[in-house]
Amino acid sequence: MERLRDIGEDALIDRLTAGLPLGAGTLVGPGDDCAVLATADAAVWELLKTDCLVEGVHFSPDTDAEAVGWKALCRSLSDIAAMGGRPHAALVTLAVPADRAVHVVEGWYRGLRHAASAFDVAIVGGETSSTPAGTATAFLSITVTGTVPADLCLLRSTARVGDRLAVTGRLGGSFASGRHLDFIPRLREGAWLAGLGADRPTAMMDLSDGLARDLPRLAKASGGLGWRLDVETLPCHPGCDPGHAIGDGEDYELLLTLAPGTTDRVLTAWSSAFPDTPLTVIGQLTPTVETPLAGGWEHFTPSPDASA
Amino acid sequence: MERLRDIGEDALIDRLTAGLPLGAGTLVGPGDDCAVLATADAAVWELLKTDCLVEGVHFSPDTDAEAVGWKALCRSLSDIAAMGGRPHAALVTLAVPADRAVHVVEGWYRGLRHAASAFDVAIVGGETSSTPAGTATAFLSITVTGTVPADLCLLRSTARVGDRLAVTGRLGGSFASGRHLDFIPRLREGAWLAGLGADRPTAMMDLSDGLARDLPRLAKASGGLGWRLDVETLPCHPGCDPGHAIGDGEDYELLLTLAPGTTDRVLTAWSSAFPDTPLTVIGQLTPTVETPLAGGWEHFTPSPDASA
Repeated sequence: MERLRDIGEDALIDRLTAGLPLGAGTLVGPGDDCAVLATADAAVWELLKTDCLVEGVHFSPDTDAEAVGWKALCRSLSDIAAMGGRPHAALVTLAVPADRAVHVVEGWYRGLRHAASAFDVAIVGGETSSTPAGTATAFLSITVTGTVPADLCLLRSTARVGDRLAVTGRLGGSFASGRHLDFIPRLREGAWLAGLGADRPTAMMDLSDGLARDLPRLAKASGGLGWRLDVETLPCHPGCDPGHAIGDGEDYELLLTLAPGTTDRVLTAWSSAFPDTPLTVIGQLTPTVETPLAGGWEHFTPSPDASA
Repeated sequence: MERLRDIGEDALIDRLTAGLPLGAGTLVGPGDDCAVLATADAAVWELLKTDCLVEGVHFSPDTDAEAVGWKALCRSLSDIAAMGGRPHAALVTLAVPADRAVHVVEGWYRGLRHAASAFDVAIVGGETSSTPAGTATAFLSITVTGTVPADLCLLRSTARVGDRLAVTGRLGGSFASGRHLDFIPRLREGAWLAGLGADRPTAMMDLSDGLARDLPRLAKASGGLGWRLDVETLPCHPGCDPGHAIGDGEDYELLLTLAPGTTDRVLTAWSSAFPDTPLTVIGQLTPTVETPLAGGWEHFTPSPDASA
């Protein structure tokens, strides 16, 4: 019998979503950072994103509860950022063992409220459920809605051969350092990039599972491209080497592609707009893969090279 | 240390959502069947609902997988129906043990697609996660968006003393009969009721946790009212007595209130529009509780009278 760990997350999603009927109002369905829907205002598109945190996978029982709430909301906000959008409303679904301390759940909500307030999001609804007796694991599922001007929305599927690859910030060591719990989703940076007019990125996504898994997704979505990574240029967090930058995951930085002729202008403008945050060219898109990557986060298949 | 089972689901939600900042575009926040948001078109409101199915709570590991998927989507559609709305898009979050058979998850998705197709919903996105080693429980969380004409939206908070209480269909025995797995959400009926003009219900909600828990929620939301239930009039499924109709839950029928002067007209029009489905007056709203209720589904506190 075939099990989830035999096929892995990406193949599972491909199978589940193949041929899904999307309806007339759906502009982008499964496969990008957010779904994109038409609205009554032709100039504005709606963004929808769902995500979840599973105790024992994305955080541990002794993780600070407020940090769990912050992370739960900010993960989805990072996906809104990756489309160049701004968030509006959030829904919170919790499944929690009945013997869990009330103050833990209240702590999650303090973190959720803190993040909602910081990024102007309204928590408009939710659902709570118990878990069955004997299941000690808690689950938080978050849905965020947002909007993006129709002419600014950035997708991951629109990169072209020759486009330069760039990342915001620094990569690697997020889980070990605890950065995965208090990162700032790149909403300002994403909207700024989307607003660059003719110089705007040709494609964008957020880095959550690590460059080793997310870059191939962007390249595949853009028509089955390859890439060349200039590994020595990777902007690494202190204490991390390029292996960490490629494989650790949980960076919540933006991965974007820039047309070659625009790259220098964007880098110059960026350094004025965001002097404290690097924007680094790390390679380019090619017809075939020139820099095979190993590592990154895979939910169902334990990767033999996950420590790369 | 205070635990969730010490305070129960409603008190937990009250604590978590008290004083949540909702922002200008939020017309109805936590507490109704759906959140209601303004859109670019002043005549149309957006509905948002999140819900979840937990294995071992809402279904068992040997429940037919397609039925699980059907139920997962239709539960949220029932909430859209309760506002008088129509659904548009759905997002699906799954957390599943890595050793689960692929065909089970594919079965869930067949059921989700079947329901989406039946009720004209686009599945536009999702997320998948593993569960930690040792956690054998699967979780499905569904978010549905919808719309409702602004002048038709029905809330649970707008009933008045003297309004008649009515329910669609029949109640009781849903779990025992398997009806909770293949029910039809009352979308047509909800939209029809919302469109009745001056005769439309004064309030409406869906019955998911049982009359014993849901009626008090409607009465409380409508300014702390009471109710009198004419128990002998309860429309029971064959094999069920009024105790089942009050306490079993999982009915996914509509509970509505009608102004006294409109009730007869609505019942007459209903029987022409939906000849195969009863609409039954079961009592009325009063200043204080005249018919105490026992039973219904409570997630965190095992009810001593759950078998009532």
